[in-house]
Amino acid sequence: MKLKVKFLKLLAGRPVAILHKNFAEKASIHTDDRIYIEKRGKKLAAVVDIATGFLKENEIVVSSEIQKIISLREKSVVEVELAVKPESLGFIQKKLSGGRLNRQELEKIMADIVNNVLTESEIAYFISGICKSDMSIEEIKDMTLAVLNTGKRLNLKGKVIDKHSIGGIPGRTTPIIVSICSTAGLLMPKTSSRAITTPSGTADAVEVICKVDFTIKEIKKILKKTNACLVWGGSLNIAPADDKIIQVERLLNLAPEAQLLSSIMAKKLAVNAKVVLIEIPYGRNAKVTRKKAEELKKKFKKLAKYFRIKLKCILKRTEEPIGNGIGPLLEISDVIKVLKGESECYKLRGRALESAGQLLELTGKAKKGKGMEMAEKILDSGKAYEKFLAIVRAQRGSINNIEKIKAKYKRDIRADKRGKIRDIRIKQLNNLARIAGCPLDKAAGIYLHKHLNNIVKKGEKILTIYSQNKTELREALRYYRKTKPIRF
Amino acid sequence: MKLKVKFLKLLAGRPVAILHKNFAEKASIHTDDRIYIEKRGKKLAAVVDIATGFLKENEIVVSSEIQKIISLREKSVVEVELAVKPESLGFIQKKLSGGRLNRQELEKIMADIVNNVLTESEIAYFISGICKSDMSIEEIKDMTLAVLNTGKRLNLKGKVIDKHSIGGIPGRTTPIIVSICSTAGLLMPKTSSRAITTPSGTADAVEVICKVDFTIKEIKKILKKTNACLVWGGSLNIAPADDKIIQVERLLNLAPEAQLLSSIMAKKLAVNAKVVLIEIPYGRNAKVTRKKAEELKKKFKKLAKYFRIKLKCILKRTEEPIGNGIGPLLEISDVIKVLKGESECYKLRGRALESAGQLLELTGKAKKGKGMEMAEKILDSGKAYEKFLAIVRAQRGSINNIEKIKAKYKRDIRADKRGKIRDIRIKQLNNLARIAGCPLDKAAGIYLHKHLNNIVKKGEKILTIYSQNKTELREALRYYRKTKPIRF
Repeated sequence: MKLKVKFLKLLAGRPVAILHKNFAEKASIHTDDRIYIEKRGKKLAAVVDIATGFLKENEIVVSSEIQKIISLREKSVVEVELAVKPESLGFIQKKLSGGRLNRQELEKIMADIVNNVLTESEIAYFISGICKSDMSIEEIKDMTLAVLNTGKRLNLKGKVIDKHSIGGIPGRTTPIIVSICSTAGLLMPKTSSRAITTPSGTADAVEVICKVDFTIKEIKKILKKTNACLVWGGSLNIAPADDKIIQVERLLNLAPEAQLLSSIMAKKLAVNAKVVLIEIPYGRNAKVTRKKAEELKKKFKKLAKYFRIKLKCILKRTEEPIGNGIGPLLEISDVIKVLKGESECYKLRGRALESAGQLLELTGKAKKGKGMEMAEKILDSGKAYEKFLAIVRAQRGSINNIEKIKAKYKRDIRADKRGKIRDIRIKQLNNLARIAGCPLDKAAGIYLHKHLNNIVKKGEKILTIYSQNKTELREALRYYRKTKPIRF
Repeated sequence: MKLKVKFLKLLAGRPVAILHKNFAEKASIHTDDRIYIEKRGKKLAAVVDIATGFLKENEIVVSSEIQKIISLREKSVVEVELAVKPESLGFIQKKLSGGRLNRQELEKIMADIVNNVLTESEIAYFISGICKSDMSIEEIKDMTLAVLNTGKRLNLKGKVIDKHSIGGIPGRTTPIIVSICSTAGLLMPKTSSRAITTPSGTADAVEVICKVDFTIKEIKKILKKTNACLVWGGSLNIAPADDKIIQVERLLNLAPEAQLLSSIMAKKLAVNAKVVLIEIPYGRNAKVTRKKAEELKKKFKKLAKYFRIKLKCILKRTEEPIGNGIGPLLEISDVIKVLKGESECYKLRGRALESAGQLLELTGKAKKGKGMEMAEKILDSGKAYEKFLAIVRAQRGSINNIEKIKAKYKRDIRADKRGKIRDIRIKQLNNLARIAGCPLDKAAGIYLHKHLNNIVKKGEKILTIYSQNKTELREALRYYRKTKPIRF
């Protein structure tokens, strides 16, 4: 079948070809099918989109990727035919019907995900497959290695340490832990994610005061200066397959265990971590129940043993945000308060000290049972704050930036009666902060004046909503009234 | 977040908005997310695509759908925010984790599929969900009604009959059955599909000699003239949700039982059929095994009872193509030979007579056990052929069209030794015909000179490959040599 070329000057990330609806119907070609486009012996597989309006039945619109690779001109005539399906689709089918994939098959799938050979729908089928059947530890191990192999590595010498929190709970312990541990002489190249379903990831919060996207070479320079960094993992490309899978999971808020485990382990392996701490908050408002948390712990331990990583899990009932602020600016402000020794965020301080203490013990910096004491000493000496400032400087920023951005609009929510706070719904608060403009509007978010079990007088401030935009503030207020995230 | 509008003059079938990669990363917006685009109080949800090249970070490219609905101009500034997810996603999640969906939930999913609210990835999750858990008959019934409700109906009075074959086997019995039954006075408004994975659907074959896409009003006129029609179901929009689901299933060649059953039943209900015959070919080269065929039969019976349809299933071991031709022109030529009484395609004749006979018995036109005899009489009298010509005329065509199209290239495949044909691999033959250019090149395809268990002399013709294109013919030959679909 011959078609005339029209250009779409977009780089879509993968070769995209748009066919006219009528032509596609007759040729039995559908959205997301793959076709070969051929011109003078050069042949390329492209994913099909279908449209009308801009193109005629005998035309094909191609994205810049295709134009470049097979050097086409406008109105060139190309030969089009249905392409053979990628081999990895067979493996996905196997997983979806409950089969076990081996390392080679998982590697092919991951490579095809990273190279944009597989479409979002096909990745959705893969995710459904791993949701469906419980993967064995052996298979999760293979998937970890497959994910690891698609990405770059930070080849560091020395005893690298790392931490991870099974997310969903606002409150940034990470910058505090990193500052304390690197002050103690530990090497902590921390890579973090941006917000996925929460209003702010660690990377979004740190970005308020400094850059977070660096190349591997730049990160090595930062580490030389400060023994630590606080960067966005996405810019490093250490687990690109996983990044893509998480995108497709978000559509249904899925988090299959096998993917969670392999994702975290691959990222730790990519930075060559030898000692790892995993925080698993559990409870009715957290991502997992206590039982699930215990199961995850067991599996993390098994994987760590296989990869020869010293790993500890901290399980902690968590029923409310750990800090007072929710949103990039408000969360990094909490962090700075704790580092400066201000008393407001005692819960955030406690959690950070506990995790830092564990890492100090695991690495032998502190004796068993003495880690938290040591962490507290470092924090109270002001040295952790100095270290934090050094990291921010090395990442080309300044904490003075927090003074420069300010939300245009704010609104206090006050108690309409006296009472004790009995429930703080984290999910609804997260949604509320997102409606207010997080994570893109750095200054948007929520400040909690009260916490669980606090007694509140009538008319007292419970929380303040910040927003850059009147409409968003209005919608946030409407959402607050509808969902009542804080209950007496 | 404010962005400047740029136009993409395409109708993508649903509102599509393209964001710049850097902007999307910072805003935590990903491919297939939904955003609201707002301008002067008018607000629309659009699905996100991500690109670079053609647009700047502060720009948003919108498809013509959006431009029209919220009347934008180039360089208008719009407000963009993450949209609330459609309710149906929650139901899909429920199904994926093994829950049971009720009628209202299935209806919401089907409506969102038809209205392009759900993306291909989300439909893939739904399909995975129904693949995963065996749906009860009750749930399949609800799904049938949900599919039915998304489409149009052909409200016909009188005893409408219909037939369906669980596809995959080339050979068109349908036009023969329709011609015989309507000659006997039965009302048979036959809607057929185009090729899905085979080289030709009934609609593709019939399209060689006449039009197949008509509106419901036009079909009623055709039925008035001839008591029957042979049209493409897709143009009628009788089960658009199902059409979309099948597209996404094709990516992995999935055919979950619940979807198969609800799809067929919904289409029969849409034409108001009272008597239905289902052909279920089984065997190593067919879509299903004998056991699976028996199970399907039971479920069809249960559904038919619920919908008060008189239904019969014919289970038949089928190990090779039913006719000689594979491909639109070659298959319709077989049909005409049988209708004219030529002796070549005795197997196709036999199968068609058997099915027509069953329908004559089910409707009481023939006594029990005498249907096939009656069908044979009608066929041999030449009246069925006359009826067929009348249908073709009513559908604005002529069988002389088969003389007008002819494949440019052909190649005979001859036996390289003497022997008995022991295996004819249908799947490989189907692929072969598609490589040769089917279904778009109507004249492309395969003609089988020999069938299963035939003794072949060395040098004797086994099959002929037809193609419009030298390259395609060459590739078809290469595929034939590689896969050897016919084995001695």
